[in-house]
Amino acid sequence: MKETLQDLTIRDELSEQANHLVFYIENNEKNAFLDSFDELHTYDQAVFYISLTTQLRHQIIKWVTPTELADIFDEIDPEDVDFENLLSEMAPRYAANMLSDMYTDNAVDLLSQVEPEELAMYLSLMPKDSMDEIKRLLKYEDDTAGSLMSTEFISINQKLTIGEAMVVVKEAAQGAEQINYIYVLDDEGALVGVISLKSLIIWPDAAKISEVMDTNLITVGPVDDQEDVAKIMADYNFVALPVVAKHNMIGMITVDDIVDVIDAEAAEDYSRLAGVDVVTLEDNPLKSALKRLPWLIGLIFLGMGTASVIDGYNYLVAETSILAVFISLITGTAGNAGTQSLAVAVRRIALKEKKTLAKSLLVEILIGLMIGIIAGVTIFLVILVWKHNLLLGIAVGLAMGVAILVANVAGAFIPMIMDKVGVDPAVASGPFISTLSDLTSVIIYFNVAKLFIDKFMMH
Amino acid sequence: MKETLQDLTIRDELSEQANHLVFYIENNEKNAFLDSFDELHTYDQAVFYISLTTQLRHQIIKWVTPTELADIFDEIDPEDVDFENLLSEMAPRYAANMLSDMYTDNAVDLLSQVEPEELAMYLSLMPKDSMDEIKRLLKYEDDTAGSLMSTEFISINQKLTIGEAMVVVKEAAQGAEQINYIYVLDDEGALVGVISLKSLIIWPDAAKISEVMDTNLITVGPVDDQEDVAKIMADYNFVALPVVAKHNMIGMITVDDIVDVIDAEAAEDYSRLAGVDVVTLEDNPLKSALKRLPWLIGLIFLGMGTASVIDGYNYLVAETSILAVFISLITGTAGNAGTQSLAVAVRRIALKEKKTLAKSLLVEILIGLMIGIIAGVTIFLVILVWKHNLLLGIAVGLAMGVAILVANVAGAFIPMIMDKVGVDPAVASGPFISTLSDLTSVIIYFNVAKLFIDKFMMH
Repeated sequence: MKETLQDLTIRDELSEQANHLVFYIENNEKNAFLDSFDELHTYDQAVFYISLTTQLRHQIIKWVTPTELADIFDEIDPEDVDFENLLSEMAPRYAANMLSDMYTDNAVDLLSQVEPEELAMYLSLMPKDSMDEIKRLLKYEDDTAGSLMSTEFISINQKLTIGEAMVVVKEAAQGAEQINYIYVLDDEGALVGVISLKSLIIWPDAAKISEVMDTNLITVGPVDDQEDVAKIMADYNFVALPVVAKHNMIGMITVDDIVDVIDAEAAEDYSRLAGVDVVTLEDNPLKSALKRLPWLIGLIFLGMGTASVIDGYNYLVAETSILAVFISLITGTAGNAGTQSLAVAVRRIALKEKKTLAKSLLVEILIGLMIGIIAGVTIFLVILVWKHNLLLGIAVGLAMGVAILVANVAGAFIPMIMDKVGVDPAVASGPFISTLSDLTSVIIYFNVAKLFIDKFMMH
Repeated sequence: MKETLQDLTIRDELSEQANHLVFYIENNEKNAFLDSFDELHTYDQAVFYISLTTQLRHQIIKWVTPTELADIFDEIDPEDVDFENLLSEMAPRYAANMLSDMYTDNAVDLLSQVEPEELAMYLSLMPKDSMDEIKRLLKYEDDTAGSLMSTEFISINQKLTIGEAMVVVKEAAQGAEQINYIYVLDDEGALVGVISLKSLIIWPDAAKISEVMDTNLITVGPVDDQEDVAKIMADYNFVALPVVAKHNMIGMITVDDIVDVIDAEAAEDYSRLAGVDVVTLEDNPLKSALKRLPWLIGLIFLGMGTASVIDGYNYLVAETSILAVFISLITGTAGNAGTQSLAVAVRRIALKEKKTLAKSLLVEILIGLMIGIIAGVTIFLVILVWKHNLLLGIAVGLAMGVAILVANVAGAFIPMIMDKVGVDPAVASGPFISTLSDLTSVIIYFNVAKLFIDKFMMH
């Protein structure tokens, strides 16, 4: 069971009010509590609710209706709470009513955390409409448009006039999640246009919807990836986006969900680069450590490969111990270059740049060459000044240059290949690339050193 | 002069239409061009416009009014274009008119790229209102609420009724950037409440604004950091947020700008972790290489510190060459641990967790100990199996454990200290932390080895 995160904290300005609210609950002062509680924005109500103990929440559940609690739960992010726990604090029928009063997409997000038996129970206690809608949305895979969409949108028939449409909108406005865009359907229910509330207000009542609506529709399908949806909304500055299947509009994605998607996707990318999950943070030190260990220990075994390569060249080191001096400099610099290259490649893939694999690779090779040459020359000069040894300088500089080139190409190539093949570039983590480049760097370094020693009997 | 990025590409569905449009321009068929061009969404028009050559754009400038071009430029992201170049393709007065017809926040974003003399010229050619507004927004520092806000919001006096307010809104709707929220002011112009368009539609005409408006205002100030603004909009699911100075509303930030902010901030964090700028990507390989070199070369010099430490222990390596085998394993693993620790610390700081520095540090020390012990024991066992050398195993395992602990603490501590001191944690890049931990790891490793060799005369 996941612990409740404490990173959701009451805004400083509200902490005094929060203390008063707790006081009211503890002293059974229902009216005083509700008066003060109603002053808060629903988001703040949610933060407050989550921060309480089970006992205090039980009292609130007694005092508010399922519909009122639904408004609060609409603000709760599934990442932040143990939702199953929160639900179990309510009587099952109360919980079912609350869930059916929430906006469907939010209910679905929270319910996807619940065990199948509990889920089935709650569904069975709901009104049939809500149950059907929730079941339909639940079957969409995570991270698709279908899993993000809500069904509370307003649609009108294209034969209406502006005035008639306004009547429909006024009636439906209360239950709709957003009313910026009103979707226009034909008699078969197919989506044929969209009209903004702004237009509805500006145009005269007698004007026909079919004549003033925007037919230049941008839509997504229910199985489209949420990252693609986010990009469309960000590019077109939409507040909502219709989800269409077989010409029929089945749902709508609102910009606030996309804001969460962008944040979550960014945290995921960051996690992969760092080799640790920062999407959900643990408070417990032991759990934190356990989250970091798998990658770390796995990479230790990859690192043992590097160790055994150096072991294989032990005789070289025994003879020419100066070689050991530059091991970490070369592996470290190559690792840094590989990480840079990986980051750029991942970013380009995310921006969906349309370049061929061959072209991208060629560019990275060029960049690797340039960086490798400059870094190699730098280290050559440093060694010259420091150790006054021309051959050593050339050997280390050359090894540095080639190691950087290889790391650069690997850092770009691996995520590109994985993207082409359709595999999630999760393996292409920063630590993996730099540990891999340790291996390649060491192989290159000792082979170059061996070459120089053999040819020039370098001391 | 920055090159125009080619990562903005015409949607596949539109490439045929784009070819037709180019054909029309080249054959001077104005009406055919305008008819087809008007079918496109303004964002697609912008993408098309940017993709053309200067010559083709000149023709479009002849055919459309500044106001029409303003709609297109409202969609252009400053990151994607050389704006000064685009502006110079128009006659100065045309450009000035276009700029004043754009939404102010967008005009300001694009103008911040322009050289001061050009900027002054365009401002001097604008209507006074526009010039004043733009000048006012320009003086806000980048990345603050003031630099993001637009001034095209609708405000009404609190004494109005719903019906009277609707009249105001209908008139003002055309020029407003968003009309989801209508801001309510008192006679002094201070912001006292907000009412959603949804409420305006639902409530009867006779109802008083002052009675139905929402007084629970969440606002930001003009110098507030854009990251804080983004967090508020994301948490509260707002579509717009008022910017207030001395109780008066001076501007409004819309969610589409925040979507861009979140994306940019995420790209920045990612850039820091990787040690390379991925916010703006270069197409030119030479420029790409030059962007990566500063950090890389700088870290080479830090790496030279590590090299000279190993050099100082050269006598140990000469005697006991097996030591060289584990250098990169220890530095690599400690570097990976440090990177993980850095990523988690940066994420916690971004989420504005309220922990004391002392507590956070204690937690990281605990985590570092746990990881260090497990990793140290792992490598001890591996060496035992591989080299059958108990003392070597203990020495390397111990060094590994301590190196990881130190890297873990450094990876968390450095960004925390910088955050407390108020310095931008830009120095705490991933490559910096791992190169630093190379240094500490090597110092630890050789001291432990020396201890063991002295005490046990290890071979």
